[in-house]
Amino acid sequence: MTSAAAPGDDLCLRPATELAALVRGKEVSARELLEAHLARIERIDPQVNAIVTLDAEGARAAADAADAALAAGAEVGPLHGLPVAHKDTHATGGMRTTWGSPLHADTVPARDELVVERLRRAGAVRVGKTNLPEFAAGSHTFNPLFGATHNPWRHGLSAGGSSGGAAAALAAGLVPVAEGSDMGGSLRNPAAFCGVVGLRPSPGRVPTWPAGLGWATLSVQGPMGRTVGDVALTLSAIAGPDPRVPIALSEAGASFAAPRPAQLRGLRVAWTPDLGGLVPVEPVIPQVLAGVLARLEAEGAVVEEACPDLREADEVFGTLRAWLFEATFGDVVRRSPEKVKEAIRGNAARGAALSGADVARAELAHTRLHEQVVGFFDRYDVLLAPTTQVLPFPVEQEYPAEVAGVPQEDYLGWMRSCTLVSATGCPALSLPGGYTDDGLPVGLQVVAAPRADLRLLEVAAAIEQVTGPARLPAL
Amino acid sequence: MTSAAAPGDDLCLRPATELAALVRGKEVSARELLEAHLARIERIDPQVNAIVTLDAEGARAAADAADAALAAGAEVGPLHGLPVAHKDTHATGGMRTTWGSPLHADTVPARDELVVERLRRAGAVRVGKTNLPEFAAGSHTFNPLFGATHNPWRHGLSAGGSSGGAAAALAAGLVPVAEGSDMGGSLRNPAAFCGVVGLRPSPGRVPTWPAGLGWATLSVQGPMGRTVGDVALTLSAIAGPDPRVPIALSEAGASFAAPRPAQLRGLRVAWTPDLGGLVPVEPVIPQVLAGVLARLEAEGAVVEEACPDLREADEVFGTLRAWLFEATFGDVVRRSPEKVKEAIRGNAARGAALSGADVARAELAHTRLHEQVVGFFDRYDVLLAPTTQVLPFPVEQEYPAEVAGVPQEDYLGWMRSCTLVSATGCPALSLPGGYTDDGLPVGLQVVAAPRADLRLLEVAAAIEQVTGPARLPAL
Repeated sequence: MTSAAAPGDDLCLRPATELAALVRGKEVSARELLEAHLARIERIDPQVNAIVTLDAEGARAAADAADAALAAGAEVGPLHGLPVAHKDTHATGGMRTTWGSPLHADTVPARDELVVERLRRAGAVRVGKTNLPEFAAGSHTFNPLFGATHNPWRHGLSAGGSSGGAAAALAAGLVPVAEGSDMGGSLRNPAAFCGVVGLRPSPGRVPTWPAGLGWATLSVQGPMGRTVGDVALTLSAIAGPDPRVPIALSEAGASFAAPRPAQLRGLRVAWTPDLGGLVPVEPVIPQVLAGVLARLEAEGAVVEEACPDLREADEVFGTLRAWLFEATFGDVVRRSPEKVKEAIRGNAARGAALSGADVARAELAHTRLHEQVVGFFDRYDVLLAPTTQVLPFPVEQEYPAEVAGVPQEDYLGWMRSCTLVSATGCPALSLPGGYTDDGLPVGLQVVAAPRADLRLLEVAAAIEQVTGPARLPAL
Repeated sequence: MTSAAAPGDDLCLRPATELAALVRGKEVSARELLEAHLARIERIDPQVNAIVTLDAEGARAAADAADAALAAGAEVGPLHGLPVAHKDTHATGGMRTTWGSPLHADTVPARDELVVERLRRAGAVRVGKTNLPEFAAGSHTFNPLFGATHNPWRHGLSAGGSSGGAAAALAAGLVPVAEGSDMGGSLRNPAAFCGVVGLRPSPGRVPTWPAGLGWATLSVQGPMGRTVGDVALTLSAIAGPDPRVPIALSEAGASFAAPRPAQLRGLRVAWTPDLGGLVPVEPVIPQVLAGVLARLEAEGAVVEEACPDLREADEVFGTLRAWLFEATFGDVVRRSPEKVKEAIRGNAARGAALSGADVARAELAHTRLHEQVVGFFDRYDVLLAPTTQVLPFPVEQEYPAEVAGVPQEDYLGWMRSCTLVSATGCPALSLPGGYTDDGLPVGLQVVAAPRADLRLLEVAAAIEQVTGPARLPAL
């Protein structure tokens, strides 16, 4: 799908941090920036299928308003005038929000949910919604409403998921700012597949509101971008306390806006190619990532092979996820089983079979796991691991039934490099860690201590300095 | 049990804030202060039965060390040299910790748990442990190991509970500093019965460690004292983040040390005599509290009768409490049913019968309740209510089977004025709101928005200025 570069294409491939400065400095108008992105969406998205709802006219009005505000000398937010697309699970006032489900094909929320509202207040210009798997379940982006999202690096391959539309849109230069959510890797896996950066923040860092289960910590919302700096900039707009959210962390969002790259000399880096021997991984992945490790060591980092003991993480993640699915989708599944994919029916059924004591046992193990990682991060500044166990696979495949020769039980098996980390409560980020010989991106997962989101960004920024900025696919 | 005042008794009845200043200024030595308290414990505690384990020699060594540190010019903590007694559910290194259960009659933990360690680091001198009901279940302090704690205001009446030993010890001048825990009123109810001040902080304000269920929010630890200032001082020593505790709030403890009394003029006060019509209350209680309300109005506060809608709070509290009891005591109950009181067996059995979906339904309602109170506290600065539905009752009674003529289902029924508030996630405090004609204290419950612990203390300090400091019983 290579084609001649259109005017404005250069603008669409620059970091959001640069674009924000250009708009604020009135070197580029928000409207001009938007038109460049709309043109690129029109040209490229038919093949990528990342943006499933587009509101060009609404975006033009918002961009014009952004330019008028600047002209009037108004104080503007950190994302002023930057096009943004929202994950289609996130309620957008007046704009269809489908969850990738036929049940919500025509659902138009009355108002924005908090993450959307915060991006709007930060000045971002809403262009539309990004694709995702049905009800965001699973790490491969396809659904009966919109079909599959293709990987911008190679048509026909998966963009990952569940925030797959967001990752593909960023990699393809369709928007400079995007967000998603991550229960079992949904911000990390697609970032890895598409060669961009996705951050699963600590629970409560980006408060989710409204939320049915206000104290639940397994699923979090977070930013995605083409650079670590872009992710930090977006995080600064969506993090920070909200009194309605009982688990919201209290640091102001602004504290994350511009992380200073960590000092690599003496940095205590733990590396695990397989999460402590718990997950099979295609050999090419650690082979590619070995290059980053060597460069970190050359810069003075102390890299050791080590991993927290994650043996209880499968039970924790599996039980709590099933419990959440029953609580969230149980009624829908019972009412309209035929309109929900089998994977979700299975998860909800597992959840419905849980006793209160099963949930308590998982929470006890969850607590032990948290204690385990807190101790681990006394000894190491950061844990590095593969983000994914496989390379992008054909879109037609529902999920990899086998990883490095090991058969996988279900659609979650190939995602364990991320789900095991979700169970710890740690923030984690995926950034490009290298490319295969035939040019597919490989994600490096960076994990830090619970709540150490700023430290995580600082280390990721330092790694990015070593690896160089993300390449972008030729489109 | 009136008797002639002993030398040093005056010292034992002064606020902890004053005593801390006296010790720091070397006007009174820690050893002198300790001896005064030990003498008073020896004289008075045989009839009160508040202190169930006493380590006079260990305390003397600690007091001498505190004096030596001062003499050497060391930096000292906010509670330097002040005698403290710990609730007997809180692990004290090298000191018996029984939970009021024959199963733990000889349990001696190897190390302090966090709240105990923090008080030690703040300079407090450990004298011993305070009485409580078996496994801290219920708001009346009696157990098979130590019997009942008596109310210092009238021998033969209950001191409340579960932190009943702590409240009685403070009211009787046996220690100036004490702490406890509160799932369904255990810091508020005994404070009300004994005429002292007890604070149930927001979950995570005083991090509990170790804790089996690290994310659970229903049971919290907190301070008790004879004045609001004393409670704030102790809170300053035990609040603040700990990386091992996933729900710990991040404000430093020091920020709570000395709350400035709130401005009463214009303060928006909601008052409910019966938690929105949900609980029966003995008529004398609101009659006594009417005096405070009148004085607040005279000072310019705007008092309206209003209450958040707490109709879902019973289900939330009942389900989550049973779930926690099964998770915490289920194994013990199955192993040694004959060594656990019936009330706990019943709670654990209710917990064992819960499905995961039941727990989820309670958490969904919990979330709605949180949202409800957040909205309420946009309209009001504070909610006032009776702390207890009854006056102190005879120690021989297991629980009030009837409140204001209304039969109570179980041992939790008469505690609903506190349990309904626990279910909201709000911080709450009980302070003396007046006295009956025959001289029993009546507790005023002050409730603030989730996490607004400082605001709560500021309002409580202002109310205390109006009501005058707590009276103390003649002993």
